[in-house]
Amino acid sequence: MATSRFFNMPPLPSTWNKSKVSLQRVNITSNAIQKTVRFSVINCSLKINHAQPALNDEIRVPSVKNEMENEEITSPSVAGRLVKGGLVFQQNVSVRSFEIDSEYKMSTKAIMNYLQEASLNYAKKLGLIIDTRFGITPGMRKMDLVWVFRGMHIEVDRYPCWGEVVQILHWTCASGRTGVRFDWTINDINTGETLVRASCLAVMMNKNTRKTCKLPEEVKEEIKAYLREDVEPIVEAFKYSSPQIEAMDHIKTGLTPGWNDLDVNYHVNNAKYLDWILESTPDSIRDRHELWKMNFEYRKECLKKDVIQSLSRVLPNNEKNREIEVEHVLRLESGHQVLRARTVWRTNSHSCKGINSMKTIF
Amino acid sequence: MATSRFFNMPPLPSTWNKSKVSLQRVNITSNAIQKTVRFSVINCSLKINHAQPALNDEIRVPSVKNEMENEEITSPSVAGRLVKGGLVFQQNVSVRSFEIDSEYKMSTKAIMNYLQEASLNYAKKLGLIIDTRFGITPGMRKMDLVWVFRGMHIEVDRYPCWGEVVQILHWTCASGRTGVRFDWTINDINTGETLVRASCLAVMMNKNTRKTCKLPEEVKEEIKAYLREDVEPIVEAFKYSSPQIEAMDHIKTGLTPGWNDLDVNYHVNNAKYLDWILESTPDSIRDRHELWKMNFEYRKECLKKDVIQSLSRVLPNNEKNREIEVEHVLRLESGHQVLRARTVWRTNSHSCKGINSMKTIF
Repeated sequence: MATSRFFNMPPLPSTWNKSKVSLQRVNITSNAIQKTVRFSVINCSLKINHAQPALNDEIRVPSVKNEMENEEITSPSVAGRLVKGGLVFQQNVSVRSFEIDSEYKMSTKAIMNYLQEASLNYAKKLGLIIDTRFGITPGMRKMDLVWVFRGMHIEVDRYPCWGEVVQILHWTCASGRTGVRFDWTINDINTGETLVRASCLAVMMNKNTRKTCKLPEEVKEEIKAYLREDVEPIVEAFKYSSPQIEAMDHIKTGLTPGWNDLDVNYHVNNAKYLDWILESTPDSIRDRHELWKMNFEYRKECLKKDVIQSLSRVLPNNEKNREIEVEHVLRLESGHQVLRARTVWRTNSHSCKGINSMKTIF
Repeated sequence: MATSRFFNMPPLPSTWNKSKVSLQRVNITSNAIQKTVRFSVINCSLKINHAQPALNDEIRVPSVKNEMENEEITSPSVAGRLVKGGLVFQQNVSVRSFEIDSEYKMSTKAIMNYLQEASLNYAKKLGLIIDTRFGITPGMRKMDLVWVFRGMHIEVDRYPCWGEVVQILHWTCASGRTGVRFDWTINDINTGETLVRASCLAVMMNKNTRKTCKLPEEVKEEIKAYLREDVEPIVEAFKYSSPQIEAMDHIKTGLTPGWNDLDVNYHVNNAKYLDWILESTPDSIRDRHELWKMNFEYRKECLKKDVIQSLSRVLPNNEKNREIEVEHVLRLESGHQVLRARTVWRTNSHSCKGINSMKTIF
């Protein structure tokens, strides 16, 4: 479970109503940095209940080619634009030199950062007011509720290369009775090919007790007009059993958040967890393979003072497929788990090294 | 001393000559990750010899208002554009949600990343070919020379806010007889006000002996057409004495690079050093002040396996000015220094917290 900078459930522009502003954030006071927040996970159901079968899959693979007009950074207003009548947010981004790995490919961490960026810009584009004091619906405020991430699922078909401009599409859906789902694709701007698919479930948490709960009827009523009900997740979580902690044989201890890993709430940014997972992933896998599929179950907030242990275990049974599956746990020194994850790796699918040598601008 | 992903000394477009491609990079083989490169600093002169007094300061404060057409990410070609007849590179960037601190201000690390990004895009824009195997002039290849950063100086008048679009201007100059200087400004796109000024000196290093040297005449001849000679640094290094290691009373040990901190050469990205400096800066300074001026002296490469100690000392004599000066050293456990730095902090000059609450997009 991870707090994110903001969670958004954008309304349709035509029905936008200021009293129903639904941009959410965990409202921690500014002295949270000294406060060790420990929240119970007793009531957390870790089953991720994905959306119903699609009744209407119009949105499932948005028409990239038809929406290919590119982003322009033309003013201090918000990047990106609304398409599909406001149901989908679109933003083009260029892969920066500091967002690539040693193969000149966009890092998975950078991908995760841009997913969050798209959600925030979608909320802004819809006219939601972004501020530390805004974003809680009246019903949520009454019940001291905030949103937290529960599960993130990402599949990368091809990593964008340094300098490549890619298109991010993003939309949101109701997810059963428990939460809200965010979906994203990242697409090749020339071919329309989907390069990355991601899906994330967010649920309600009481900010005092730190316990999660079902979406209360009152809150559901407030936000229901802004959520799709009929769309399948763009990527399904793959099924797996609980990690076997005692069998985990790759361990890195003493990992601590740096100041630049904290968000505006002084929480560790959820993309940082990926760094820590990689710290206990064997070199032999990390050097010769690339991350293909990732499932993250966020179980606990992580703050500046926390010291993290990263544990990994390579599963033996998938090597015949030339795919390697690894299970991961991040935990505090007390033993409390911060994150459970499963990653699937494949041999490097392509190289970005040559791509820039073929381009001259004159 | 820090290796950067690439160093560029862009030629004027009109005189561009493929045989004189001057994009530079440290050419470490792919197994460098296992190799502990230790290079001598015996011959390093740490005096940073800034450029001559300006004969022509036309370029010193480039005319932002007149060059305000904004970047468009319109194709997979390179962001940004050439202005001033190719002598200056201009790129507009939008501050992302994952590039801000807890005050919603662009982080200093993000600023450093964008300075490097501008250099690379300038080189691309001039038609230089970006590839791991390219970029050494014939003279440099013969002498096994590469470029390394020696000193970086940054002054921030105002930190850009989340969502703000700012304009980066960048140019390069010869610096005495020893090296090449890169200059940058980051500017308010509406007012033309300069928000950030930065200047960086790069020098030659023999990639086998790891010793630095003066710019050889042969190489100077190759690249001289591409460098300005008559421009002052946009920001001067402030003067200070050597740090008193034994007096340093704020110490953080056991700092290690993460996988996402490495560049394409498996070296630690120079912006990462700032993270480590902050780790030993007292909370009382970091929480209530902001970085105003920074001087970095890069003294040694840092690789994945290195374990870093961060040492800081707050200087007592500047508190009367409400400015706080701190000296820093990053060193290996062996005692070898990786970085010396001096930072000047001031009370928070402005807040970005309210800025987004005033914007609605409809």
